[in-house]
Amino acid sequence: MTSPHPHGHLHEAVHRDAAHRARSVADHLAAVTELLRPLGAQARTEVLPLSQALGRGLVHGVLAPVSLPPFANSQMDGYAIRCSDVPDGGAELRVAAPVPAGAGAVALAPGMAAPIMTGAMIPAGADAVVPIERAAPDRFLAPGEEAAVQLPATEPGTFVRAAGSDITAGERALAAGTFLGPAQLGLLAALGIPEVTVYQPVSVLLVTTGDEVVEPGLELSVGKIYDANGTLLETAMKQAGLRVLRAGISTDNPKELQNLLRSQGVDADLIVTTGGVSKGAYEVVRQAMADQPVEFLHVAMQPGGPQGIGTFDGIPFLGFPGNPVSCLVSFEMFLRPALSALLGAPAPRLPLRARLRHALTSPEHKHQVRRGSLQPDGTVQLEGGESSHLMHALAGSNALVHVPEGVSALAAGDEVEVWML
Amino acid sequence: MTSPHPHGHLHEAVHRDAAHRARSVADHLAAVTELLRPLGAQARTEVLPLSQALGRGLVHGVLAPVSLPPFANSQMDGYAIRCSDVPDGGAELRVAAPVPAGAGAVALAPGMAAPIMTGAMIPAGADAVVPIERAAPDRFLAPGEEAAVQLPATEPGTFVRAAGSDITAGERALAAGTFLGPAQLGLLAALGIPEVTVYQPVSVLLVTTGDEVVEPGLELSVGKIYDANGTLLETAMKQAGLRVLRAGISTDNPKELQNLLRSQGVDADLIVTTGGVSKGAYEVVRQAMADQPVEFLHVAMQPGGPQGIGTFDGIPFLGFPGNPVSCLVSFEMFLRPALSALLGAPAPRLPLRARLRHALTSPEHKHQVRRGSLQPDGTVQLEGGESSHLMHALAGSNALVHVPEGVSALAAGDEVEVWML
Repeated sequence: MTSPHPHGHLHEAVHRDAAHRARSVADHLAAVTELLRPLGAQARTEVLPLSQALGRGLVHGVLAPVSLPPFANSQMDGYAIRCSDVPDGGAELRVAAPVPAGAGAVALAPGMAAPIMTGAMIPAGADAVVPIERAAPDRFLAPGEEAAVQLPATEPGTFVRAAGSDITAGERALAAGTFLGPAQLGLLAALGIPEVTVYQPVSVLLVTTGDEVVEPGLELSVGKIYDANGTLLETAMKQAGLRVLRAGISTDNPKELQNLLRSQGVDADLIVTTGGVSKGAYEVVRQAMADQPVEFLHVAMQPGGPQGIGTFDGIPFLGFPGNPVSCLVSFEMFLRPALSALLGAPAPRLPLRARLRHALTSPEHKHQVRRGSLQPDGTVQLEGGESSHLMHALAGSNALVHVPEGVSALAAGDEVEVWML
Repeated sequence: MTSPHPHGHLHEAVHRDAAHRARSVADHLAAVTELLRPLGAQARTEVLPLSQALGRGLVHGVLAPVSLPPFANSQMDGYAIRCSDVPDGGAELRVAAPVPAGAGAVALAPGMAAPIMTGAMIPAGADAVVPIERAAPDRFLAPGEEAAVQLPATEPGTFVRAAGSDITAGERALAAGTFLGPAQLGLLAALGIPEVTVYQPVSVLLVTTGDEVVEPGLELSVGKIYDANGTLLETAMKQAGLRVLRAGISTDNPKELQNLLRSQGVDADLIVTTGGVSKGAYEVVRQAMADQPVEFLHVAMQPGGPQGIGTFDGIPFLGFPGNPVSCLVSFEMFLRPALSALLGAPAPRLPLRARLRHALTSPEHKHQVRRGSLQPDGTVQLEGGESSHLMHALAGSNALVHVPEGVSALAAGDEVEVWML
């Protein structure tokens, strides 16, 4: 290593946690959610125009201020009629003035048919629309005393979009905590709501650690590896809507890491580190957190078992393990779902079922998270093995594959839960 | 309407396309892809640092410049050993100096065991790692003449991550056209590649049309509706990585629409309008495009059948229909997959299989696109009916449900293709 540690460190009881029972995935998720609960406070909200609210979580439930559609309108280009004017054999009706789009419609006089375009308001008195294709002639005529059109008998309501058929004024349009994607924002626009109260994004200070990791683009001397964790987590966090401050790579000197966190972390809502949390002899994050209320523990999960959780100078802190796949799995299993639950964003991963293409084994007392490619035929192909250093395999995957605690082997064809990435 | 059209417009042959056979979904996708092909040109690329390349498509395939891992390293905290030193019954080995992380390892002398942490380089001569848990004592000792450790017999290769076990130098890491998400960018970082050549984002001028549509937040007079299309498409396009210029709402006056496109569209790569493309009497987009090489046609799809495609003053142009669900379906079926194919971004929608919770009917000669909620049990619940005005139902959906041309009815339990939104 570049700055040798005194040998004395090796005497530390590196297995001080070994006697503890590993914490379950569900319990650690609950602990992370509890740690981050203040980030979902009312004080941390803002009001944004719809198009800027993409990817945020909705703070308050929204009731529809108007019905959709706001008025009965035509589903087709055709003739608005009064059904009682057309007996079973059909009838010839005089053509009224066309119904304008975007304005109120004049009431339909008995015995008349009003040309109407899709979306235009059904005139008072009319109760159905006959599509132009079913009229004779099957094209629009000029309105006037002389014009007439032959139309078939029609059931009331045909090709009429009733007022409130999508949503009625006063009904709940969106629940509090809804993730705002295009469809949800489109609905708010349709309801005439121009802005929305959303949770502020979480800002995170991201620090990778290790004397052995080097920034991409620099020379790679013997024994060193390039830092994948910084890029992997920064982009995963950005994709999830977090604001990320990259503090670069810290060495294995605990003092240096502390200084880095103190100089750069002051405005962060959350500090995330990678590496230095397991049971090795030189664990910089453990050492840097020695005087802070931070717990280092083992979660019953593979990969991503070693985890740190607590606060550093009062700022919520999560210590992820050092291998890239472990980092991503930690993010997906703990930080991402905690934020989804607290802030409505990012959107939660939808659990899907898929059939395994291969048999697999899994440690019985751990929740195993494998990487895989979900196929269009509903099977999932495992990519790479159990090992947490397989970045190339991760880059060829589109899903996480879950093997719960208590399962030690699965056969090809067995169903598993998968999360699409 | 606010600006009445001369009645003469009604005499136009509004069914001028009726005799034409509707174009298939596949054929229209091919036409849209052909229209947009210049956007995927080499001239439209840029070089970005990894973290700024999130969500872009990779222009050139990447070969691994180094192997991953670059050197054999330990998968565990434990002792690096030479397996031949430990017979079946186990052996006591003298403890060597610990292997440092991030530096070259001294060769392992015969009969010695070197303390080694996860990720550290396997010393020359060593061929396996015994985890600390299987050593006696099961904690690290200070190195020195006196120290010794009892270790079990071990197979060569145990807990060693071989150099190149993830990817070998020279092997293809990523193919041209790959969508760059966190895992792909993380892989590039792991390979030491700090920046990447990607396609430039597409800039689109988005115009909604219609005398009947009003901006959210304004007063809704009789016969008017709020514009959902602008927000829905703007945010869907942003989510897909496009740069969107909103030109607001055009009236049904063709001259006004032309002026708007000419004043705001000069820098756009693409113009998208909504509304005014079907067979009604007042179709502003059709009228505004009368002198341009734009084709208006019917695609055999429900909703979203009426489509416009061509160029306006030389700029690629797509005219989507006016109903919100039709707009989103048009985007998802044509524009989004064309961009995925040409630019590697956005990521293509993964087709999944799901079982219908309900029976449905579908027009036999059209590809029907329904909205639904994909459930964790692999079934899909249809949300809303066939109608294209159901924004609330769309906002409660997470998937598009495909009923291909040629299918007129499906039963509950039948399998369908779904795309997660």
